[in-house]
Amino acid sequence: LTRTVVSRASAIVVGSELLSGKVAEANVHALAKMLRALGIRLEEVLVLPDDTERVAAAVRAHSDAHDVVFTSGGVGPTHDDVTLEAVGLAFGVPVHRDPELVRLLTSAYPDRLEQASRMALVPMGAVLHSTEDIRWPTVVMRNVWVLPGVPEIFRMKLDVVRRFLVGPRPIFSREVYTRLDEVDVKDLLDAVVRQHPSVEVGSYPKWFDPSYKTKVTLDSADEAALEAACEALLAGLPAGEPQRVG
Amino acid sequence: LTRTVVSRASAIVVGSELLSGKVAEANVHALAKMLRALGIRLEEVLVLPDDTERVAAAVRAHSDAHDVVFTSGGVGPTHDDVTLEAVGLAFGVPVHRDPELVRLLTSAYPDRLEQASRMALVPMGAVLHSTEDIRWPTVVMRNVWVLPGVPEIFRMKLDVVRRFLVGPRPIFSREVYTRLDEVDVKDLLDAVVRQHPSVEVGSYPKWFDPSYKTKVTLDSADEAALEAACEALLAGLPAGEPQRVG
Repeated sequence: LTRTVVSRASAIVVGSELLSGKVAEANVHALAKMLRALGIRLEEVLVLPDDTERVAAAVRAHSDAHDVVFTSGGVGPTHDDVTLEAVGLAFGVPVHRDPELVRLLTSAYPDRLEQASRMALVPMGAVLHSTEDIRWPTVVMRNVWVLPGVPEIFRMKLDVVRRFLVGPRPIFSREVYTRLDEVDVKDLLDAVVRQHPSVEVGSYPKWFDPSYKTKVTLDSADEAALEAACEALLAGLPAGEPQRVG
Repeated sequence: LTRTVVSRASAIVVGSELLSGKVAEANVHALAKMLRALGIRLEEVLVLPDDTERVAAAVRAHSDAHDVVFTSGGVGPTHDDVTLEAVGLAFGVPVHRDPELVRLLTSAYPDRLEQASRMALVPMGAVLHSTEDIRWPTVVMRNVWVLPGVPEIFRMKLDVVRRFLVGPRPIFSREVYTRLDEVDVKDLLDAVVRQHPSVEVGSYPKWFDPSYKTKVTLDSADEAALEAACEALLAGLPAGEPQRVG
């Protein structure tokens, strides 16, 4: 199986319960970490309520703007599960009952097929991906992967994503922890940023933590440039710093 | 102090570290819960990288589409802290050093004022809100509240938001937990949704939990309608259910 190479991803999280504060969002971080490990850049995340038209408009816009889009949530059997209809609407196609999904539902819910039937709906033209371990297929419509909202199931589905997609090249990362305040490393960071333009430098203050005050991150697809930037950063820190390098 | 009444909110979370999976987002849930308690509807959340132009475009669009916008992150002293410049750019105004913030920074960083100076930048025309407890002011530009990304500080700032904003009316909520599968409550939910149009009904499956399989939520600004919908739901459940009502 050859994996498709994609560079730029986005995520659309569908769930009124997240916006009303009833449930804390629990899938984006796992998705972001996996994409990072694959060398795929997650460019934005949008959280929307269970509103078919708004989700459809966002799916269409994200599908045009990114190589691949992941949706999370809104794929169950009840009235508030609108994602698959929204994906169909985004691309101007109706949803229909997929025969393979109907077969799986019939064996799972032999006497309640009517009530379960929304779970068989997929946009016309969608592809179903499954792996040996994960029998319930994952719906992919053009470049849009439709993933479930239940965190345990979402994580299982990431294994399917990993089987089919990969980034153009790995991204390398280093982390440097110091007890210096951000204000005290600012001039050094500015110099590293200026001298190593292919390296992305981040600076994150930590409050109320005795072990460090600032974490500096360095990221690049160019491993030699990354090491040079990291060395320049370490050489510029005063004696006794850094506290830790990762 | 009279609080401003706002109905519809959005949030823009600024942080490349969230999209690269290095850090898990930790502010949206607290914001969502607080807005819910105030009766303000959080309509969408967007997570963007530290990119001035993209943040500016989103701030402008969200400011037009919602009554109030909250940003989280990107307000420190280093090169990757772009939010205040982006908010200025969104409204076509430059940033300048606010005299009050310069005074506070001078006392906090007497010998490193130059390095700290980005923290004094605010868009021209912005208002600074502070409370007795929280001396560092919160920048508000038109309907955009600029909040910090550090979770402990973000939570402190929510007290400032609460002091100045309130929703048009409270939103009432009930929760019903059942061991029935979503498929088995679907017909009942459809009936409740149809008969109680002013009540928003959500259905959330729980996997791998022995105490319940489906949580049903009911929300409305009309408390009597909410209670009627909740009674209809409870009356429709079989003997032995619900497991719990909240």
